[in-house]
Formats: sequence, structure tokens, C-alpha cells
Amino acid sequence: MKALVYLGPGRKAVEDRPKPEIQAPGDAIVKIAKTTICGTDLHILKGDVPTCAPGRILGHEGVGIVDAVGPAVTAFRPGDKVLISCISSCGKCEYCRRGMYSHCETGGWILGNRIDGTQAEYVRTPHADTSLYHLPTGVDEEALVMLSDILPTGFECGVLNGKIEPGSSVAIVGAGPIGLAALLTAQFYSPASIIMLDLDENRLRVAVQFGATHGINSADGKAVEKVKALTDGRGVDAAIEAVGVPATFELCQDLVAPGGIIANVGVHGHKADLHLERLWSHNIAITTRLVDTSSTPMLLKTVAAGRIDPGRLVTHRFTFDRILDAYDTFAHAGETKALKVIISA
Amino acid sequence: MKALVYLGPGRKAVEDRPKPEIQAPGDAIVKIAKTTICGTDLHILKGDVPTCAPGRILGHEGVGIVDAVGPAVTAFRPGDKVLISCISSCGKCEYCRRGMYSHCETGGWILGNRIDGTQAEYVRTPHADTSLYHLPTGVDEEALVMLSDILPTGFECGVLNGKIEPGSSVAIVGAGPIGLAALLTAQFYSPASIIMLDLDENRLRVAVQFGATHGINSADGKAVEKVKALTDGRGVDAAIEAVGVPATFELCQDLVAPGGIIANVGVHGHKADLHLERLWSHNIAITTRLVDTSSTPMLLKTVAAGRIDPGRLVTHRFTFDRILDAYDTFAHAGETKALKVIISA
Repeated sequence: MKALVYLGPGRKAVEDRPKPEIQAPGDAIVKIAKTTICGTDLHILKGDVPTCAPGRILGHEGVGIVDAVGPAVTAFRPGDKVLISCISSCGKCEYCRRGMYSHCETGGWILGNRIDGTQAEYVRTPHADTSLYHLPTGVDEEALVMLSDILPTGFECGVLNGKIEPGSSVAIVGAGPIGLAALLTAQFYSPASIIMLDLDENRLRVAVQFGATHGINSADGKAVEKVKALTDGRGVDAAIEAVGVPATFELCQDLVAPGGIIANVGVHGHKADLHLERLWSHNIAITTRLVDTSSTPMLLKTVAAGRIDPGRLVTHRFTFDRILDAYDTFAHAGETKALKVIISA
Repeated sequence: MKALVYLGPGRKAVEDRPKPEIQAPGDAIVKIAKTTICGTDLHILKGDVPTCAPGRILGHEGVGIVDAVGPAVTAFRPGDKVLISCISSCGKCEYCRRGMYSHCETGGWILGNRIDGTQAEYVRTPHADTSLYHLPTGVDEEALVMLSDILPTGFECGVLNGKIEPGSSVAIVGAGPIGLAALLTAQFYSPASIIMLDLDENRLRVAVQFGATHGINSADGKAVEKVKALTDGRGVDAAIEAVGVPATFELCQDLVAPGGIIANVGVHGHKADLHLERLWSHNIAITTRLVDTSSTPMLLKTVAAGRIDPGRLVTHRFTFDRILDAYDTFAHAGETKALKVIISA
């Protein structure tokens, strides 16, 4: 089969690989119908993710059709249409029992990282019973691909950790796909304001189309002043960090109101300054999270019911033979205006 | 009356001052029976607290007898024995309605900071109805002085924010009075372990007497290794920072398990490094809080019922005419082994 393979920092190629086989009783083999590229895949290609060794097939998102299942799998059978979660979870270990699937002792984020991933014709998915989901009928498959990772990530790490509730004031720093996923799902809870901050005017326009109450270009250094002016001088109840660099995390510390929450969503490669000399008495919380995908069943219902359409995040489409073009388009989003790209079999 | 007055960085004196008078309808005047000295008073004397101007009578803790009340006060009358909360709260503003009394728009921590405090013969307490508490009968007044600040601080900022529950593993970094207050109140929730870390062997011995399951001297640089060995290699569910310097806050980042909480109690004068490059995927929370004293009624009941005895924190006693000696004793706790000092009228 064809597969997109990481060859070491800065290098990737489409290669011929053997079709994966069942290795453990709980495995399934899924024929990929649609997959996508995540910002994390770009991190891997920069060499930022040491757990991902050269030779690895990338990808941790996708929908497909079950091709084969191991003898312990009871919830799925060949022919079933499934969503593949970016998080594999055994459902049995202490972390899984607490719903913290991201830290499953034999799973977590392993697809396209510690084991081969979804940017291929087939993928082996461990712990299939607790890591795959039946696709609801009548929903566009492109939209459902967003539920592998980006939508639960924005929702769990941003919206749930940010404790957004009716009347909340919210700032989302970073209007890329993950910030927009937080924006879409924040609206479940009817916040009073959702202020989107970014350096890219196009992304801010998209954010307002997606429901942001305000878009602020933070390039002029007046973002804090502007957010304070929108929030009675207090700052926001929830500041969602959706970029992953020290400057944006530090900006969130200036945006958060007393009693508020900084919900980190971004993948960080460096430490940041924490201004405890100011924040120690501010009654705030800072949260971090690798998505657990514990909200996937809930999100599937919201999409099936038409409450949100994550398909709006898809801007570009490719067939698998053009996956290298898809990477180029996604990696140069500033020029291409790409949000999420879909790669179809 | 006699009062202990802050005269600017490094300078204090006992001075004669006029007895305070009712200024607002909600005020009370309280004759101080017993007061104490807080680590924060030492911070003020170092010049670290810019809101506290020279000329201020220090002190935000104490018990006493109501001497006079303003016309709006209905819950107290002259002669009532009262506990003075370190936090004054109007009970009416948005923050008070949320129980976040520390950020009351006309109160918060003002006693001995923005207005004259309790290290005097009399003090004026604003918002008396919602900032004073009737003393339970049959409880030693020294123990009750601990409920002005230190006990609710350790409890709210450390134990409640740390979400300690039965079976939790807990580390408390800093076995000073505030760490010991967290230690005493953590035991309400039956955690599996409470590991106390400090550099002072005497304080670690006291901590074990007070109920710590383990005392670790962190001077040898092996504290993280030792805590991991006690927690199946994972770290603790709650790491309580009770010192207030970057090194101890950063130590907490090494002690906390995936899914755990760093509950900051310490008063910080400097920023700290936050290792997001490691913690972004660790599913942790970091909390900060200026004590709200929202738990004071609950704590009064636990003390009255004999569930804890915060009087154990009192090591030294002085009369008011020796308050400068009390400061010396408290400020040199390494030699004097002082925890809390009581100053009686």
C-alpha cells in the first residue's frame, strides 16, 4: 500500500509499505477513506517530537471502513464505517478509568507517533473497541474527520477546561484551525463574548464568520488594552491559548480576569514566563491537556444533530496521490489560506 | 492607643495613635484581645507590598470584643466576642456574590495594608456584618486567631484548590506555618499520603508530628526522585507550593503527576519558569488564590468540634508591650523555631 512516511527532520516521502496485519486481539485494520494533516505532523517534520522515529507512517486522524478485527473486538465488524480517534485507549488502566485516555498506559497518542498512522491506505488501530466510533448516518464524512482530533482538542482543552458558561467572556489567542475549533464549540455554552486574537486578517475574518463577537489583530501591541475595554477593564473569564509559543501564553496572562482561567491548547516547544509576582493573588487557574477524546460521543451527537458543522474548517481537498501537495498547502497556510485539508483515498 | 506602625522599608515602631472611630454605617470598632504576625507583615517590612504606605498600622489577624458598631450593622453588638477575618467583604459586589471575597471591590485584603490593622489596641473593621464572625464558646482564643488568615489560606489555596480527596497523594513544599496549616486541613479528606518537603529538619519533625506521612529534606537535590519512589513513579496528585519563590514553584512542576494540580499558596515576588514544553500534554492545572475566607464558617465548626486544633501552630506568646520582641522572634524562625506567635492585649 502507499503511505506517507517521515524520514527524519525536514524529510518525508510516499512509500510502498506492506498492508498492516492484526497483531493483538483488540486490533482492527481500517481502510482509510479520508484523512487530514495536523499541525502536530508539521512539528514532527521539524524534528520536535522525539517519540516519532524516522520510518514512521504519519497521521492520527481519519474515517474509514473496518477491514478486519482481532478476536477480542466485539463492537465493530468488517464493513463498519468508523471514525478513528487520535487517542488509543485500553479502557482498563487507571488513567482510562478516570477518563484520562490521553495517558492510557498502552495507548494515548500513539498513531502516527509511536506506531504507524492514518496517512496510508490502511491503518492498524489498537484497542479498537474503545478507540473507534461508529459514524452517524447522513453526515458528511469530511466534517467527521474533524472529530478525530481537532474538534475534541478545541473543545476539551479549550472550552471544557476553560469552564465556559452562559455569560462568560472568552478570548481565544490564535485563529488557526484549533482556535476555530474552540470557537465553534464554545458557542454550545452561550458565552457573552468570544474575542478572537490573531496576526492574520484573513483568519480574523473567518473567525467572525464562524461566530466570534470580536476580532482583534494583536500586531499593534494594543491587544490587552482592547480586550480590557471590552470587558469592563477586568479581562476575560477564559483565555484560550491556541498557538503554542511563549509570547501568546504570556499574552493570556495579561488577558485573564481575576477568578478566570487560562486554558492552554497549544503544543509548546519552549518554557514560558509565569508572572506569579502578579498572578499569585489573582485567583486564576491554568490548565494543560493532551486531548482525551472523552467528548467524542458527545460531539458526534452535536454534529449529527446539526448543532455545529465542523466541515466549515475544510478549505482544500486532495486525493491521496497528491498528499505531498496537501502538505505544501497546509504548511504554507499564510499564502494558501488553508485551514484543514482533506485527503481522500 | 498603642499601635505597631510601618515606617517604610526596614522600619517599624510602637506609636501612640488615636482610637479609631466609626466612619461608615457598616463599620465596627473592635478592641483587640489577641493578634499575631503574618509572613506578609515581614514582606511589607521588606518594602515588597507597594499598596501599604508608611504610617500604616500593621496586622490583619485577631480576635477581640466589639466596642462600637455603625448604624447598618445588625449581626454584631458591643460586647460580642469576634474573630476578625483578614479579608473584608461587602457581600454585595459581583466578586462577593461569586464568593470571591478576596477581590471585593471595596474590601479584600485591606486591613493592615490599605487601612490600619489589628496590631493595636483597637481596630476599625469595615463591612462588619460580612467580615467578622462570632466566636464559638469553649475554644481557646489562641487557636481561633489562626482562623483569621493562616488556616483558611492553607485550606482554600492549598487543600480546596488542590482538590484533595480520599486516596490522593499530596506533596506540600514548605513546612512553615502556612504549609502546616495546609497539612492540618488536608487531613479532613483522608489522602493516602502527605509528603512534606523543607530544608529545615525541625520543621520536618513538626510536620510528621502534625500528621505528614513523610518528611523529605530537599537540600540534597534528590527530592523529586524520592517523591517519585513514593508514588509509583508518577508524582503526586496535588503539589502545594507554600514558600513563594521560583525554585519551589518549579520543584512542584517536577512533582506533579499527569492529571494532577499545582496549588500555589506562596506569596511570590518574582516570575517563575513554566515548563510548558513538558507540561502542555500533562493534563495538569495550576491554581493561584488570595484567600477568600469563604471557608471560615466551616473551619470554625471543625475547630469547635475538635476535629483539628490550630492552636498547635502557636509556639511563642507575648504581651502587646513586647510586640517588637515578637517580631524579632518570628522573623528569625530558623533559630527560634517559631511557627506562630500570639500577642495578647
